Formats: sequence, C-alpha cells, structure tokens
Amino acid sequence: MGLIVQKFGGSSVANKERVFNVANIITETYDKGNNVVVVVSAQGDTTDDLIEKAAEINPNPSKREMDMLLSTGEQISISLLAMAIESMGYPVVSLTGWQAGFVTNSQYSDARIRRIEGERLHRELDKKNIVIVAGFQGLNRYDDITTLGRGGSDTSAVALAASLHADLCQIYTDVDGVYTADPRLVQNAVKLDEISFDEMLELATLGAQVLHNRSVEMAKKYNVKLEVLSSLERKPGTQVKEVIKMEKMLIKGVAKDDNIARIALIGLPDRPGIAFQVFTTLAKKKINVDIILQSIGRDGTKDISFTVPLNQKDLALECLKEEKDYIQAQNIEMDDSVSKVSIVGAGMQSNPGVASKMFEALYEAGINIRMISTSEIKISVLVDSEKAKQAVVAIHNAFDF
Amino acid sequence: MGLIVQKFGGSSVANKERVFNVANIITETYDKGNNVVVVVSAQGDTTDDLIEKAAEINPNPSKREMDMLLSTGEQISISLLAMAIESMGYPVVSLTGWQAGFVTNSQYSDARIRRIEGERLHRELDKKNIVIVAGFQGLNRYDDITTLGRGGSDTSAVALAASLHADLCQIYTDVDGVYTADPRLVQNAVKLDEISFDEMLELATLGAQVLHNRSVEMAKKYNVKLEVLSSLERKPGTQVKEVIKMEKMLIKGVAKDDNIARIALIGLPDRPGIAFQVFTTLAKKKINVDIILQSIGRDGTKDISFTVPLNQKDLALECLKEEKDYIQAQNIEMDDSVSKVSIVGAGMQSNPGVASKMFEALYEAGINIRMISTSEIKISVLVDSEKAKQAVVAIHNAFDF
Repeated sequence: MGLIVQKFGGSSVANKERVFNVANIITETYDKGNNVVVVVSAQGDTTDDLIEKAAEINPNPSKREMDMLLSTGEQISISLLAMAIESMGYPVVSLTGWQAGFVTNSQYSDARIRRIEGERLHRELDKKNIVIVAGFQGLNRYDDITTLGRGGSDTSAVALAASLHADLCQIYTDVDGVYTADPRLVQNAVKLDEISFDEMLELATLGAQVLHNRSVEMAKKYNVKLEVLSSLERKPGTQVKEVIKMEKMLIKGVAKDDNIARIALIGLPDRPGIAFQVFTTLAKKKINVDIILQSIGRDGTKDISFTVPLNQKDLALECLKEEKDYIQAQNIEMDDSVSKVSIVGAGMQSNPGVASKMFEALYEAGINIRMISTSEIKISVLVDSEKAKQAVVAIHNAFDF
Repeated sequence: MGLIVQKFGGSSVANKERVFNVANIITETYDKGNNVVVVVSAQGDTTDDLIEKAAEINPNPSKREMDMLLSTGEQISISLLAMAIESMGYPVVSLTGWQAGFVTNSQYSDARIRRIEGERLHRELDKKNIVIVAGFQGLNRYDDITTLGRGGSDTSAVALAASLHADLCQIYTDVDGVYTADPRLVQNAVKLDEISFDEMLELATLGAQVLHNRSVEMAKKYNVKLEVLSSLERKPGTQVKEVIKMEKMLIKGVAKDDNIARIALIGLPDRPGIAFQVFTTLAKKKINVDIILQSIGRDGTKDISFTVPLNQKDLALECLKEEKDYIQAQNIEMDDSVSKVSIVGAGMQSNPGVASKMFEALYEAGINIRMISTSEIKISVLVDSEKAKQAVVAIHNAFDF
C-alpha cells in the first residue's frame, strides 16, 4: 500500500484498446490498495495534427497561443481515460495541469515547473479517487496555459511524485526497460534491472530516448524512485534509483545520438580569450555546445571544434559569422554527418582499461574516431554517421554485459 | 467607438478561409476604434467528433468528464482564430471560459452562468487587445470545467455583453437576420430590420433556430442590444431590442418546430388534482411540457393532451406509466408525427382578426388543426408533420409582410 504515480505516453493511449489496456494497469494498481495518480500525454498523433492545423493558419504563431492549442491534446486524453475507468466502475477524476496545481514559469512552449499546489490532488486522493492528470502542461503567474516542451510529460510525472512524496513513479513506454544498447541496433542488448540516476542521466542525454534528461534530473534532485517499464508487457522494468550496488558490471550501456553537428573554426589567431569569445557568443543564443576540442593549427594558429544539436547548427553558424571580425577564423567548417557514440557506467574513471577497450573495439571495426570527450561516468566519441550503428554493435560486443 | 461583443458559430470558423473571414470582420470592427470581445464555438464537426470518441470508450460517461472533453473544442477554435489575427498584425489574446471569468453552477453539460469575474477581461481590453473567448464553457465552484448546453455560445456572448456593458452584441450566423418565416420554406419571407425581445423569444422558442431562447431571455433581462447577422454577407442584420415602434406590421414571423411529440391521456377519472399530478410527475423529470389541452371525454371522464420535446417523449411515457395506478388513464397515446406552427407579433392580443385569419389560411389549404395555444404575442397550432411546411407557406401568404 502506498502512493504510485504512473505515466503513459501518447502511443499507450492511441486507441480504444490501448486506453483500456492502460485502464487495466491503473485499476490493478488501485485494487492492490494503492493511491494512484496517473499522468497521460496526448493520444497518438493528436499533437502533430494540432501543429498542422496551426501551421495552416499562421506559420509563425505566438508560443502563448500554441500552448493554448496544444494543451487540448492532453485534456482529451485525460477525459477519455477517465471515462474508460468510470466504465469499469472505479472512482476517478481527470484534472488538467492547472487543476492539478502545476505552476510554471512563463517560457511558453518550454516552461519549467515552479511548484505544484497540491490541495486539489490531496482532496481527490482523500476521496479515494484515481486521479488522471494532463501531462506536459501548467499555468503561469498570468493564469495562462503553458506547455513544458520535450520530455514534458515524464517531467510532470516525476514532479508529481516528488511533490506527493510518492513511493514509486512508473514511466510506461513502448520498451520494457533500459537496455545496455538500443535493442534495434544491438541484438544481444541486455535489459538492466537497475541503474543509477547519474548513469540514466548520461544515457538519456546521450540519446537513449527512454527517459528525458529533465525528468531524470528532477528525480535525482528529489530522490524519486523511478521505474521504466512497458505498458504492453506485464513484467518488471528497470529501476532508476540513487545508489545501486556496483560489482561486476561497470558499463551500463552504449548509446548513440545522431542529432548533432560538428562545427570547426580553423586557423584562429592564438590570442587569449578567443575560446571565451566563441562560447559566450553561442551561449547568448542558448546554443548547447557539447564536445569541445582545441588543437594547435599551422603557423601559430589554433583550431577549435565542437558539437551542437542538429537543429541549432544554422543558428550557430549564423552567430559565428556575425562575430567573424573578432573571431578571425581563416575558415568555418560544418559537418552534420557525424554521430556521437557513448558508453556510460559509474566507476569508469577509476578503471583506465575501459577507454582503451572502447577505442580498441572501434579500431578493430575500422571506425575512425573524430573527437573524444569523457566525464566521470561516460566516454563519448564522434564518428561518421554511417558507421555509428556499427560502432554501437562493436563496442557492445567488446564489453561483457 | 465603443465595446462590441461578436459571436461566431462553429460553421463560421469551420476551415482556414472562414477563420480568416471572421478575422477580417473582427479587425475591421477594431480598426473603427472599438474594443472587441469575440466569442467562438467549436469548429464545424469538432464537437460531434469528440462525442463519437467518447461513445467508443464509454456509452454512458459522466457529464463531468464529457464537459472536460467537449470544452477542448472551443479551446482549439479560440487559439486558431487568435493565430489568424496575430498573423494580420493585431494585438490579440485568447481566453478559455475560466480565464474569461465565467462562473457557473455545477449542472455539468447544461450549466447556468452565475457571474463573470471580469478582471482578466478588463486587463486585456485595457491593453487594447482583441479578446477571443471560448463560448459554451465555464468553471464551477469546485474548479471543474462545465459546459452550458444548447445555445451555450450565444448565451456566453450575451452574458459577456451584459457584464461588460457592451454597446452591442452581434450574433453572426449563416443567415443574414431574422425572417418572417424560414426562407428555406417560404420563398417570399422578408428579413426584419428589428424585432422586440419578446417577439424574438417566441420565435426562438418556436424553433426559428436563429438565436437560442436562453440568450434572448438574458439579453432582455439585462437589456443587451442584439444584432443577428451573417458572417458571409457584409450587410446589416436584424436588431433585437427592448421597445420598437409598431405601426402597420403586426405579425413578425411564422415559425415551425418539428421536434415535438404529442401525448394524450385518454379517459381520465374526473377527479380534482389529476392535472396537477400528471404535470408534477413530468416536471420532476425536467420534461418541458408545452401546449396543454384538456377536454371532456365520454362517460364523465376527461382527456388531457400535451406536447413534449421529441427527445423527451420516451422519458415522458415512462414516467406516466410508472404513475399509472394513480393517474388511471384508460389509454395513453403518443404521436410524434406532429409539428407546431406559430405566428408571433406584439399587439396580437388586441386584434382578434389575427387568429381567425391564420385558421382560415389553414382551412383553405386543407390542413387540420390538432391543437391550439395562444399567448399575448403568439398563436401556435399543432398540425401533421407532413403538412407543416405547407402550413407555414399558407399562413405567411395570408399575412401582409
């Protein structure tokens, strides 16, 4: 007996059958004597359909009105799911983001949760209602509807779990847990029973696409016990928690991220403050710079290369060109046919053999490493996109999962 | 210069072209220096689509969840219309029912507006924003979304106009005003330049389908100047106001209502309180009884017949059968192949020639009158449905419009 938050994505409620499948999972949890709070995303393609409708009317609508529009998607999901649970004879109530007390900042379409005002939630739970909450949305201080941007529904769920001191936050997806590599890429990928927040965070950031890093960061901050599991198969998933035992297993997984581009500034004057200037310029435009590499070029110049998210490459190039008088690069190059492949695992730092094993695997597979970046719990390499899948398989095979 | 409330129905915003047509009407009104508050319904078939979605999941959902679901229809409309107006370079903001301050009672799916808390509206108008408000919806004291039932968006518009002391409330529809008869039935029907609240109320109640009676009642109560006009043709419509001049024209229009059924209780004991018992029974089930006729039957019994809305006929029969031991009717008959045809006009009472002229027109057309009902400003007759259209034409021709 406890309080369990369950989150279901859009594909989990895409049609009548799936809605009832989800309703069954929820009522089974309730029947075990738990209080249940559920977070749902918009059904299947609803959000895309709404975006299309908007684009027809105005190709560049204000984010405020987009949030007004898109938040209807989740409102439809919660009411339909509540109706399904009603039809099974259970007490249930659906709540929009604002009804559930989600207060956000005013960054429309990418808002951050400030707090959850939980009076209504507690009232409904006291009445023994199953509570269905619209994910991805909240209300700002002007009483306007906001949406939370990418990974928003996961974040809604974790925030609810933190705020209600839930015993467990279950994230239901279309995979049955976190794997040592993408099972679509690596046949012998292994499902992990548990993983630490930090490792999950690296995997999420690195494109594992199971959980969004925002939600994992929040879970870590508030120590919310997470479980990633499948809404279609009824079996345990992967537990994500604070501290886990580390014995034999060192590497938790191999991840691949194709959505990056590499930018190189060639032949920069070897002047103090150049790197500072470059990255301040990019930071002002909120461009997320990832791997950075600086090397000595010819004739006393230096080269700086770094990666940016694929959808920010044009913005990055543009603002570097605006500053070209100051930066004085002989050349600016961009390459978007690169991918980042990473291995993640706590304790890696104290085991230098890990990096060499990874590089050896890539060497033997004939894959050239373009850049390298390391942290306490991960090693990332940049490779040609066309070799990325092969790199994941080679690295996965090299380690003993 | 003033404050104008404009209401557009679902067909007026059914697609991109219509949304921009509406946006043009709104911005032209704004350009004339007016403050503009707009009420919109859900686009075209959105509401029906949502009802279908719900029926698939739960044929008998709670009204609370239905309101949660259906209110998304207007939320989609307001954001899309706001985006269209944004794209034309005007300051605009969309507001849901609750953001606009609509407080209702808790009768889900058929809620009544209690008051409008106008702070937000005034704030937006002070900023010179065009304000687009979701019709048909509000919030009850539990912070739950409610919808207003039939005619809800018209009522939203009139309530806003009353609350904001608007100079004019324009109801845009797909006809260009109020006619002396349905132009689809009567070729030489004439558009009225003006009509009184009471006359409009009789016409609305009688099935003229231009304005819902709830909205007209509210307009009369708060003396809101209404105009009914077409969103497609740019010409003056029909003004609905408190007092209008009456000169030559006596009859304002002929209306037809097919959505009724006639129920007859045959051979009731001639006992005091029988009629009271019958209609109290029906009132408890919220069945709207219209024309009532009581006559002497055979052998000291009496007959009572009355009309009910078509969609309440089964409920009415059911509850009469439940009370059959007390009512002791020898027979209960139901006939749903009847229509009500009415003429409306102030001053009718003081001119007995009107009724006889109407009955004469029907006699000459060979149409049998089943029941008659009169009020100060209307005369209604019940005729066979198949003759109803012919009755409207005959009556319209008999009077000099």
